[in-house]
Amino acid sequence: MEFRRFNDTYIVRMDRGEEVMSTLAGLCEKEGIRLASVEAIGAVDRAVVGLYDVGEKVYHKKEFREPLEIASLLGTVTEKDAKPYLHLHATLCDARMQTHGGHVNELHISATCEMVLQLIPGEVDRKLDDVTGLNLFQF
Amino acid sequence: MEFRRFNDTYIVRMDRGEEVMSTLAGLCEKEGIRLASVEAIGAVDRAVVGLYDVGEKVYHKKEFREPLEIASLLGTVTEKDAKPYLHLHATLCDARMQTHGGHVNELHISATCEMVLQLIPGEVDRKLDDVTGLNLFQF
Amino acid sequence: MEFRRFNDTYIVRMDRGEEVMSTLAGLCEKEGIRLASVEAIGAVDRAVVGLYDVGEKVYHKKEFREPLEIASLLGTVTEKDAKPYLHLHATLCDARMQTHGGHVNELHISATCEMVLQLIPGEVDRKLDDVTGLNLFQF
Repeated sequence: MEFRRFNDTYIVRMDRGEEVMSTLAGLCEKEGIRLASVEAIGAVDRAVVGLYDVGEKVYHKKEFREPLEIASLLGTVTEKDAKPYLHLHATLCDARMQTHGGHVNELHISATCEMVLQLIPGEVDRKLDDVTGLNLFQF
Repeated sequence: MEFRRFNDTYIVRMDRGEEVMSTLAGLCEKEGIRLASVEAIGAVDRAVVGLYDVGEKVYHKKEFREPLEIASLLGTVTEKDAKPYLHLHATLCDARMQTHGGHVNELHISATCEMVLQLIPGEVDRKLDDVTGLNLFQF
Repeated sequence: MEFRRFNDTYIVRMDRGEEVMSTLAGLCEKEGIRLASVEAIGAVDRAVVGLYDVGEKVYHKKEFREPLEIASLLGTVTEKDAKPYLHLHATLCDARMQTHGGHVNELHISATCEMVLQLIPGEVDRKLDDVTGLNLFQF
């Protein structure tokens, strides 16, 4: 992983073999990033994404082990218990150009991941919500 | 719905039971937002999205009633007839991690919607274009 | 194509019959845009998108000739050999609201393309990487 900061924008290149969530969490810790929007494209050869069924409180997840383009990776960096909290969703395309996606657990880079992190001057916390069972924005 | 404004960025949390388009339109009216980019992720249990066939001038739309992650929600807030005009497209993922999408008519939140609104200092209008039958950016 | 610049943000409308990659490259050359994030939605009636298999070093691509909504178009403008270098990925939805996507080669607009270009005050180069066979961010 390598990056440059230009004012409030980080341009990040993650590399073959790196996992996006852990690499991004490490960057946020190192740089003290507390609030940011995340936007990325790239290519992976392994991904774990899922859907949380709020009604049934069940998390459906699926692992992919094949070459996939990251068509979109979107979300935010906020904080929970004073640590960076990542919430990202992805759309992934396979070799037939069909797409898959969901809440991101793991994205293992095959080629590169090109990310734009936009710092936002503030803080947003997370709090466990009993109704949905999710850690929601807490202002 | 709750939000915080940090300089030119709004961080918005929409909640279970709220509909994204009407909630966002209300926020834009209340806050006087005239030009902004919109980026969001979240989860819904009902969605109406469509495709406009310019050649045939027919709008194909489809309603989904199932748990879906919002993998991406992108677009803009502009103005038409001095009121906020929203134009958003979405990619939605189902419990098998397959994706669906299109032009957004309705998105009914099941869990949360986490939105980043980036204010842009200017104004862009909309004007009905006879050729396409759509309200296009008017500068 | 028409656009307005508001501080560091370009709002761009591309029109029926225009191709997104060549039109954007022309805009970047004309305006001297060296580093920017790109975010767009729109509608096309012809698209060429692909997936690069890093392991096999084969580029799989597919041409679509049908009405498709651009659910998301994301990526960056950087530089290579002192010229604008575009790297964009797209998710496209057909008339059944099913989605397709990948690395963008061509997007031919049927109705409109609404783009937000966010200038970033810096420069990022591209360099051919021998391992992946791709032009990666070079800081």
